[in-house]
Amino acid sequence: MELSKNKLKYFASFGKKKVRDEEQKFVVEGNKSVEELLQSSFRVEAIVATREWLDSHTIPCESYEATHEEIEKISLLQHPQDVWALAYCKNYDTPTTLQGLVLALDGVQDPGNLGTIIRLADWFGVSQIICSTDCVDVYNPKVVQATMGAVFRMPVRYVDLPEFLKKTNGCVTFAADMAGENVYEAELPQNAVLVMGNEGNGISDEVAQLVNRTIHIPSFNTTGKTSESLNVAVATAILCSEFKRRK
Amino acid sequence: MELSKNKLKYFASFGKKKVRDEEQKFVVEGNKSVEELLQSSFRVEAIVATREWLDSHTIPCESYEATHEEIEKISLLQHPQDVWALAYCKNYDTPTTLQGLVLALDGVQDPGNLGTIIRLADWFGVSQIICSTDCVDVYNPKVVQATMGAVFRMPVRYVDLPEFLKKTNGCVTFAADMAGENVYEAELPQNAVLVMGNEGNGISDEVAQLVNRTIHIPSFNTTGKTSESLNVAVATAILCSEFKRRK
Repeated sequence: MELSKNKLKYFASFGKKKVRDEEQKFVVEGNKSVEELLQSSFRVEAIVATREWLDSHTIPCESYEATHEEIEKISLLQHPQDVWALAYCKNYDTPTTLQGLVLALDGVQDPGNLGTIIRLADWFGVSQIICSTDCVDVYNPKVVQATMGAVFRMPVRYVDLPEFLKKTNGCVTFAADMAGENVYEAELPQNAVLVMGNEGNGISDEVAQLVNRTIHIPSFNTTGKTSESLNVAVATAILCSEFKRRK
Repeated sequence: MELSKNKLKYFASFGKKKVRDEEQKFVVEGNKSVEELLQSSFRVEAIVATREWLDSHTIPCESYEATHEEIEKISLLQHPQDVWALAYCKNYDTPTTLQGLVLALDGVQDPGNLGTIIRLADWFGVSQIICSTDCVDVYNPKVVQATMGAVFRMPVRYVDLPEFLKKTNGCVTFAADMAGENVYEAELPQNAVLVMGNEGNGISDEVAQLVNRTIHIPSFNTTGKTSESLNVAVATAILCSEFKRRK
């Protein structure tokens, strides 16, 4: 289809969160991510891509041939690529049964951190991610980018986190907290909810009172001086690794 | 001291890599990072800060009182803070003995990844980090920021990586590679060099031929569809955790 100025303007408007929220659509960019999108169950509204890209892919939706200059106009990346897509947000049902390892995020703010967590959760077979309502938006373009396609496979739900934690039906809840048990010595069940906190403040007081157990990753630095904490995505990775390797 | 227009211009010029390289100085921003800088062995040229910040700290160098508007002019952050500092780069000697766990990075490009790796290496008591010459500059402001102060404690050296790997004097070298041993089942020595590769391409062919062993982190995703790899900082974290927890 022809890429009119009006269409370009419409596509470019999805750089704004307000527009994404109103239209319930989000932007996916780059070859790898768009290919993952097309293989997923997400509905795609439109693809904007170079002639070469369009010729080498089967497109299940509206598609627009574009020059690199045109893609640059709608791209949210520093280095725009050959393809840009607009997809429909997915609203997952409220979770009913909790199985395997469930991640819960309490106020994670940084898009790169959320994206990295979704990617590693997919790797470690986490069954779903529960976000408190003050977490960064999963459809923020930087989040989508950092997931490298994992966002199309991992269910991410926004809920009232304290209310959620009150109804885990016997599934043991853990929080990462420096005052907790040494994770390397802790007994970890197969079914569990693991709560990770905000980058600066950790888990909120309300959530802290609702979890069953706390665990921490000890430092192996023997110089007597080390960082106060690990980055939240890094800490999540190590804890997921500990939960999963012990099967 | 008085913050003249010329001084402001001089300080602002350190946003450019060329100026940093020529002058061998780098920018540190934010309360936490600057406090860590002042407690470190790094030499500081100048501090620019608000009256309140200066009043509550002991300053061992030139200092300039500034308004938030003035700090904004020299800041490289999206949200400038109360203090900005200019420090001298440190050039560590070439490593002679290799002890404990040594990290080697082969073409890590993303500043956030390098910064996160330095921070977690500090946490896990890695003894030093060796970077190939094509890794991102450790004094890049985004790297410094992401280390949260760990850059002032962790020795980071840039070397010809293949040459370095030829002379490890019996210290076993490992590379993270999907075709390697399952890390959870591998025997890991106390003294080792662990090589992590570039974000897109992994380790280079030349480096691959020089390492003694390869290890990988298996996926626990049982859906038959998962990401191709983990983010390099996340993979480094899990491998460091595995090396260290087994003591």
